[in-house]
Amino acid sequence: MTGFRELWDSLAPIGRDEGSGGYLRYAWSAPELACREWFTAQATERDLGVSDDGNGNLFAWWGDPTAGDAVVTGSHFDSVPHGGAYDGPLGLVSALLAVDALRSRGAVPRRPVAVVAFAEEEGARFGVPCLGSRLLTGALDPGRAAGLTDRDGVTLAAAMGGGPPVGARPDLLARIGCFVELHIEQGRALDHLAAPVGLASGIWPHGRWRLEFTGEANHAGTTRMTDRHDPMLTFAFTVLAANKEARLRGAHATVGRVAAHPNATNAVPSEVRAWLDARAEATPALDDLVAAVTGKATERAARDGTRLTVTPESITPNVAFDPALGERVHGAVAAALGEVVPTLATAAGHDAGVLAAHVPTTMLFVRNPTGVSHAPAEHATDEDCATGVRALAAALEELACR
Amino acid sequence: MTGFRELWDSLAPIGRDEGSGGYLRYAWSAPELACREWFTAQATERDLGVSDDGNGNLFAWWGDPTAGDAVVTGSHFDSVPHGGAYDGPLGLVSALLAVDALRSRGAVPRRPVAVVAFAEEEGARFGVPCLGSRLLTGALDPGRAAGLTDRDGVTLAAAMGGGPPVGARPDLLARIGCFVELHIEQGRALDHLAAPVGLASGIWPHGRWRLEFTGEANHAGTTRMTDRHDPMLTFAFTVLAANKEARLRGAHATVGRVAAHPNATNAVPSEVRAWLDARAEATPALDDLVAAVTGKATERAARDGTRLTVTPESITPNVAFDPALGERVHGAVAAALGEVVPTLATAAGHDAGVLAAHVPTTMLFVRNPTGVSHAPAEHATDEDCATGVRALAAALEELACR
Repeated sequence: MTGFRELWDSLAPIGRDEGSGGYLRYAWSAPELACREWFTAQATERDLGVSDDGNGNLFAWWGDPTAGDAVVTGSHFDSVPHGGAYDGPLGLVSALLAVDALRSRGAVPRRPVAVVAFAEEEGARFGVPCLGSRLLTGALDPGRAAGLTDRDGVTLAAAMGGGPPVGARPDLLARIGCFVELHIEQGRALDHLAAPVGLASGIWPHGRWRLEFTGEANHAGTTRMTDRHDPMLTFAFTVLAANKEARLRGAHATVGRVAAHPNATNAVPSEVRAWLDARAEATPALDDLVAAVTGKATERAARDGTRLTVTPESITPNVAFDPALGERVHGAVAAALGEVVPTLATAAGHDAGVLAAHVPTTMLFVRNPTGVSHAPAEHATDEDCATGVRALAAALEELACR
Repeated sequence: MTGFRELWDSLAPIGRDEGSGGYLRYAWSAPELACREWFTAQATERDLGVSDDGNGNLFAWWGDPTAGDAVVTGSHFDSVPHGGAYDGPLGLVSALLAVDALRSRGAVPRRPVAVVAFAEEEGARFGVPCLGSRLLTGALDPGRAAGLTDRDGVTLAAAMGGGPPVGARPDLLARIGCFVELHIEQGRALDHLAAPVGLASGIWPHGRWRLEFTGEANHAGTTRMTDRHDPMLTFAFTVLAANKEARLRGAHATVGRVAAHPNATNAVPSEVRAWLDARAEATPALDDLVAAVTGKATERAARDGTRLTVTPESITPNVAFDPALGERVHGAVAAALGEVVPTLATAAGHDAGVLAAHVPTTMLFVRNPTGVSHAPAEHATDEDCATGVRALAAALEELACR
């Protein structure tokens, strides 16, 4: 049976940037397609039949795909720009190894088991996170999705190659009995609790808002300060306001992406475009945070003689994972590991959050000692990864074989 | 004799972006090379012999280039991204038309006259403004220049095509008796004074500083606000501090260019890189402004847990144009136009500012009714442009024929 390190190493070089040590696995880019080929080859080696759901999500089936009530596990290959190695791929590698573990101990599933690789979970290429799972569940219109463009103007339909996405697959969804996603933790809670594996109780509501600050391009040398309509000032004020308002509320707000136009050293910009990522414990708190930030930004725009438009790009409400499924998985994992398995909420979005609206869903987290995520330093030890595989195998065995 | 509009229209389409209406004439890009071909063709039509000085600057000679004490006029073709039509090209078109005007009235130069098109005045491609004139005068080392790279990693030496720049040309510089650059005004002073043409007394000291804010990349959702080292916050604070400190001093400060890394919506950035453009009436005031901004930014970096490094990319000291040359040109222009010709300082850098350290130099400005510069709305009326040609012809006649 292949060990964690061996299987991991066969995937690790794909899409790694030697400069940063991070990954550039944008959905449907050459490296991400290479990851999918790797997945198909690994599934085929295990006699798992692979099929695409018409939305770019790959399902590898152990058992009859048409039987229904399937136990599905998986994650995604795509990364944020220069992201870490574990976010997504750990769930896929662990799923394949969990299948190996069940087989090696002669477990016989009474329900079909599937490993799924979702497309464009990060939204790093087309701006909509969990794009594949949203299409599958009907949360995203396939016509709208087909016309989404990446930074080079390439549409999703063109990037997918085989034509536009088909959208909602109620037939397929009806055959999924439950979904379990294993993921590296994106904070340090498990490290503080000295636990290798935890169970997710739910996901904070969160979203991304596009902020367009418009002013008037002019010469940086000759335009008097009082004659300017400089959108960079309004943008800068908004970054600080978002940080302050999030801290006041115990919420999270981030401005990590910005583009100025014309982006010349010696020109006052005509436009600054930026994205606000905001998350809070509950939907009213999130709404209040975003209203406070945009309110203060709009006031400042009036003082700067600039304009601000705010466009919600994606908003995900609070997700509470299925308590009955969670309890069952928790019991099986705790018994298999002989360890305390903490339960925690997360502020990160996942395909599991999208699936949860349709099928009983839960998540397992693997300890991340530094808590770094979406960056090259993201890390989990081989030992903890192996423990994650044991935990996932125990969960699948409990759900599919008992 | 060709009129202003006819010659202007033959150049205007080259490098114009139909979307913004602005120009993309980066040095040695296809559109800028097309401008140079246009220049060579126009010069050849006028029997002006064109030669390259080995640094990408084109000289078109009326008379013997080796005679010495030449009267040189000209400007540049390259633009900032999406810049206006007039900044640079107006000086070249006006120079050709001024030669036509002198010839049509039978003026006979006693000194050689040359029209010069300088390379990379804006610094929009390789980051060093007045690159061509700095190489010619020895202010920029040709070895250092050859290795400068544009945003795509192309070196200057590769972009130039014919090999690396030769650098200082003391032999050529010694043959230049004086330099007069005609330029569109980049503010509204002439409009306020109701004058079509003005004379420059000097250039404010100015410079550009690269600001690198370094923090720690992390997940935007799961990283607690108190655990972050977010360089976007330090950057935003610095933008507002630069604006405030410049206003307090009656100086100019602009942050028009920014690049975040990895520039993902859902990641705290690891680095934000930005450029500060600062200008003030005198060098001590400029030094004080930059020290105040970087001091406040460094304090903030300590609070944010980030680091700031400040690298001066180019600093141009105060330039006072030659008073005797200025007086002579002022008298000739005022007499030719029968108008008041105001004298004004400018906060914009020009090749004339670089030449001024070596040869008597002055500048003429043409009225810009809105004051917009480095943007598509930059504009001068045809009538004022024609008046500018008359002014430049009068200046050249005074200097070369009397």
